[in-house]
Amino acid sequence: MRDIDDGMPAGREDLKALYPHTGNAAIIGITGNPGCGKSTLTDKLIGRYRQANLRVGCVAVDPTSPFSGGAILADRVRMRRHYLDPGVFIRSVATRGALGGLSPAVWGIVHVMDAMGYDVILVETVGVGQDEVDIAALAHTSLVVTVPGLGDELQALKAGVLEIADIFVVNKAEKPGADRAVSALNMMLQLGEVTGDGWEIPILLTTALDGAGVDELVDAIDRHRQHMLQHGALSQRAIARAETEIRVATAALIHRRLVGLLARDPGMVEAVALRDRDPLSVAEELLATAMKAPLEG
Amino acid sequence: MRDIDDGMPAGREDLKALYPHTGNAAIIGITGNPGCGKSTLTDKLIGRYRQANLRVGCVAVDPTSPFSGGAILADRVRMRRHYLDPGVFIRSVATRGALGGLSPAVWGIVHVMDAMGYDVILVETVGVGQDEVDIAALAHTSLVVTVPGLGDELQALKAGVLEIADIFVVNKAEKPGADRAVSALNMMLQLGEVTGDGWEIPILLTTALDGAGVDELVDAIDRHRQHMLQHGALSQRAIARAETEIRVATAALIHRRLVGLLARDPGMVEAVALRDRDPLSVAEELLATAMKAPLEG
Repeated sequence: MRDIDDGMPAGREDLKALYPHTGNAAIIGITGNPGCGKSTLTDKLIGRYRQANLRVGCVAVDPTSPFSGGAILADRVRMRRHYLDPGVFIRSVATRGALGGLSPAVWGIVHVMDAMGYDVILVETVGVGQDEVDIAALAHTSLVVTVPGLGDELQALKAGVLEIADIFVVNKAEKPGADRAVSALNMMLQLGEVTGDGWEIPILLTTALDGAGVDELVDAIDRHRQHMLQHGALSQRAIARAETEIRVATAALIHRRLVGLLARDPGMVEAVALRDRDPLSVAEELLATAMKAPLEG
Repeated sequence: MRDIDDGMPAGREDLKALYPHTGNAAIIGITGNPGCGKSTLTDKLIGRYRQANLRVGCVAVDPTSPFSGGAILADRVRMRRHYLDPGVFIRSVATRGALGGLSPAVWGIVHVMDAMGYDVILVETVGVGQDEVDIAALAHTSLVVTVPGLGDELQALKAGVLEIADIFVVNKAEKPGADRAVSALNMMLQLGEVTGDGWEIPILLTTALDGAGVDELVDAIDRHRQHMLQHGALSQRAIARAETEIRVATAALIHRRLVGLLARDPGMVEAVALRDRDPLSVAEELLATAMKAPLEG
């Protein structure tokens, strides 16, 4: 697994070999603002799927510092009860790819779990500033979790997340304002253009802490999966997913070269910092140089 | 401006020409969760800088749907009173670059405003799922705005945002729990490793709605700028900024080629969706082909 995380050639060759064996798992993205109870909800979903005797992979996508480069195990402690279950594979991955966007390592881990025969793979974001949209590109079904009483937040949701949600979850439904949150989401859904191949986006109420509403959520996820499967391997969504992954993989390849080239000539970066050169000309030069390097670089 | 947004060659040549004239503006990033009052705070900061007779650029980085591709003018309405002021230039830009991460257009707009002689440039994120970390790479001074009573949210902040904040703002300070939020942030700061060239990160209380605390915030921003200027054009931060921009520019160049190549051969994407091919081999092939294309592509 270490190799895949690092994006080293060995990992890449492994991934090529196992790719044909992927495509069977249900990949479920879980996004939402910090404090909305995503981890607890994920924990409850793992429990439900285990009860149904399904093997569950869980990828926690952690915010990574661009400075330290490390992935943080955040509040994984909430899923501790599943750590010793051989039917559950929990893995924490750094969120950010070198060129921004979701790290190729996330795709890699998901493919490994898929090929290993895990039935359900939950991909959960942790913390702030994360690429919900990229998780949606990776997932078959995207849950967007919110909580009652956010007001402005719902307004913001409208802009960014409306089009990626397959299922809305209002968690902490025991709190005041849950009904109002559902009404607000409903109104947004009516105003927005619904994309998703004719799927009607449900809004579900859950209380992850005591598990209320989680069965209904599992049902909704299953219904969405059936709906998507009817559209086949060349659905709009599947094509978009393949295209995104090709782009992520290409960007990673290019990045590895760029890092090498920039490290060899730190003066380039300094010249831009001093405004002796501009970043666009340097980019063109780097690209021209990278092209002359062997592809294995 | 249109050209720069589109990343067309004309815009790129303009940017190269104006880049030597940039580097004078104070670039201030403003990030924080939806509903924390970023827009109102930005509005108040614009007002303060205008009182001091400074010209202000304001870039609202909007969440963009990967499907529709458009930038949304979100709640810009809150800044409406500044729209007719010729000393204020407000611009809304789509957040996402084609390969993920902050769009190169954001860098472009900031450079244009800088070269035009705007003294202060506020770069504010709107909505969810955004790259706070990328805004921090672009800005000289990064404000991270939070509100009282978030609990879990603070915990998440710790992981992702601690290292990018130059100044913490607890907005809506009139709400209960403001002191507790300050204590929690203080504790996090003591636990975390402080990077930033010896700068001691202040935690400020504001009520953006009535402007309380905004003067102190303006002072803190100014102090941070003076602090950074003492470290010169080759500070760790300036080098990181130049390197990030070179990467963003290179990624944009490469992306334009990839889009062309993928559009010419949609069968490649379909083959990956059908698992007849794997994304990594396709990426290698694309890269090899892109290298043979002329650089102007």
